[in-house]
Amino acid sequence: MTPGPTPVPPEVLAALAEPVIHHRGRDFREIYERCLARLREVYRTEHDVLMFTSSGTGAFESAVANLTSAGERAIVVSAGSFGERWAALVKAFGADLVHVRLEWGETPEPDDLRSALRDAGDVRVVYVVHSETSTGVVADVQALAAVAKEADALVVVDAVSSLGAVPLETDAWGIDVVVSRSQKALMCPPGLAFVSVSPAALDAAARSSAPRFVYDWERTRAAQAKLDAPFTPAVSLVRALDVALGMLLDEGLEAAFARHARLGRACREGAKAMGLDLFSPDEDRSAVVTAMRAPDGIDATRVVAELRERFGITIANGQGELKGRIVRIGHIGWFDVFDITTALAALELAFADAGAEIERGAAVTRALEAYAERAHV
Amino acid sequence: MTPGPTPVPPEVLAALAEPVIHHRGRDFREIYERCLARLREVYRTEHDVLMFTSSGTGAFESAVANLTSAGERAIVVSAGSFGERWAALVKAFGADLVHVRLEWGETPEPDDLRSALRDAGDVRVVYVVHSETSTGVVADVQALAAVAKEADALVVVDAVSSLGAVPLETDAWGIDVVVSRSQKALMCPPGLAFVSVSPAALDAAARSSAPRFVYDWERTRAAQAKLDAPFTPAVSLVRALDVALGMLLDEGLEAAFARHARLGRACREGAKAMGLDLFSPDEDRSAVVTAMRAPDGIDATRVVAELRERFGITIANGQGELKGRIVRIGHIGWFDVFDITTALAALELAFADAGAEIERGAAVTRALEAYAERAHV
Repeated sequence: MTPGPTPVPPEVLAALAEPVIHHRGRDFREIYERCLARLREVYRTEHDVLMFTSSGTGAFESAVANLTSAGERAIVVSAGSFGERWAALVKAFGADLVHVRLEWGETPEPDDLRSALRDAGDVRVVYVVHSETSTGVVADVQALAAVAKEADALVVVDAVSSLGAVPLETDAWGIDVVVSRSQKALMCPPGLAFVSVSPAALDAAARSSAPRFVYDWERTRAAQAKLDAPFTPAVSLVRALDVALGMLLDEGLEAAFARHARLGRACREGAKAMGLDLFSPDEDRSAVVTAMRAPDGIDATRVVAELRERFGITIANGQGELKGRIVRIGHIGWFDVFDITTALAALELAFADAGAEIERGAAVTRALEAYAERAHV
Repeated sequence: MTPGPTPVPPEVLAALAEPVIHHRGRDFREIYERCLARLREVYRTEHDVLMFTSSGTGAFESAVANLTSAGERAIVVSAGSFGERWAALVKAFGADLVHVRLEWGETPEPDDLRSALRDAGDVRVVYVVHSETSTGVVADVQALAAVAKEADALVVVDAVSSLGAVPLETDAWGIDVVVSRSQKALMCPPGLAFVSVSPAALDAAARSSAPRFVYDWERTRAAQAKLDAPFTPAVSLVRALDVALGMLLDEGLEAAFARHARLGRACREGAKAMGLDLFSPDEDRSAVVTAMRAPDGIDATRVVAELRERFGITIANGQGELKGRIVRIGHIGWFDVFDITTALAALELAFADAGAEIERGAAVTRALEAYAERAHV
């Protein structure tokens, strides 16, 4: 029950175990074509979604490599572990980085970006995080993108853990590049990553001077247009993704967003009912991962280990400076409310046994009640 | 029966379908550690083998990105499609490229490299291909590496389709970097790629100025030393690779090399017995893929399609300038002699039906005889 890799449905696992087919053959091309079309549907874009055999960081690197020429100014807005990784990446490619570094757990506001853009002058690209998995914060990227557009900058959004879980309108919100990957809300194993590219982003890529080959957007775009992958793709994972995206679209994106909002609310209400303080915001948008502070004197690292060893339940510790101070329950992808009640029940027991002041017997019931209420997303 | 992706054994497919485990948990760390140790055994190296979620081209790009500073001189020896891809890649990273471009199908000789090194002066890195999958040629990389060492250059070997099929002694032959991947002789689906790195290669990487992040060797080396992958790896594929490498090492590398040599000989002898001219060399080292010229007036593209449509057998066409002129049967990985006789029997029928002058009834028997002879590798 971590924010990724997330549980993979048996139908998807079964697709993985099918014999490997040749990536230039007709059988694969059919799967590849359908999968790319389904990705565009999930992304809500008319433009290309490029598929890479890669980690999510690799797909993000493709954005930086295709949009950066050394010395050009770029803004990264960070408020957690992943945002800081993107700042390091943009710097590694020689950009003139303006790092809007918020405290971990803060929610980036449009005004943070607006004043940074005003101070920085000519900014080519703005990088923002939709769901900061390390803190549970989901930012209002629609508002952030609008601010970037006012300054004529391209907008790149890290939607690694949010795509398919919370609303994201690539085209309608004017987002040039959305980076995501397979093992979060898309219910697949890790190994594939995706980048949507607007015409403006492709234009900028054509002018960028950073060296790249595998991650060159135009090479992949041209190859996908012929359904002829530029490099041997992870065919088993593509096949699995095709099945998983089919399941997500059968449920319907709006239904999936509502389910995730209700799962998040159930988790937060249950946590509060047992007396825990939330670290992630208490709002419906925060539907990816719920982060809770460990009670005073309790080491979150020990509680996470305890859950694993006693019950075989994996939840996430804090990352970086938050390690030992918070626990995180992920609820993206193939989850229902009884996964939440299971996690809460185990957490209640582990915190109580560790000596924390915990209200017993309230969390599960409260979570079920909250899940039953109608979601507003 | 193409030179990759190759057939995946059922044990390996079954491992793919196991539930996805967390990449920072103890269960995965055990698999990761064993898998990295097995890779070093297959590579015959004491140094690190770095694992990437990537295509083989991506792993090759890592070599170029870590060893290239713009303007430094590098030699690429090419004699086919993959060699030419590496030349394009080295150029994309701004190296001062000396391209030793042989005809497709030629076998690169030590003297080709020696005279290029003499003419070029100060060369930092030499890139050579072990098995050129597009032509069936397996080069003597031991001799090529020795020549590069005389000139104090680093040696990078593309062993994508050769590792585990034909002898390759990373340390004993003094090869600094060996690039390979999962879906060839290692009997796995595509999605993972590997790079062995000598201490000299790591030293050079520390001085290289090309921008890179995901493919940065030091980042992956340091993370692997702690069994803590730098970016979420394709855990299902790592699990499958662990099973496949276990099977290969159970057979024994020497036994696997002998089997591949005998498979190659069976394929060549069978092809000759039906009257085909070989395109790949008629030598035991050519044990990865056998390339045969289509008889006069016969279009290889049609024969490949025919095999697929009539019999459900996939063999490979020529690539690039060889398309339509040759057919290729791969025999790396999970193959035995009856796979070869099946391919030959189908090819005999398809060529005969297409109107070629084909000796009927000889190929299969001759292939079985040749397979029974002792291999000398």
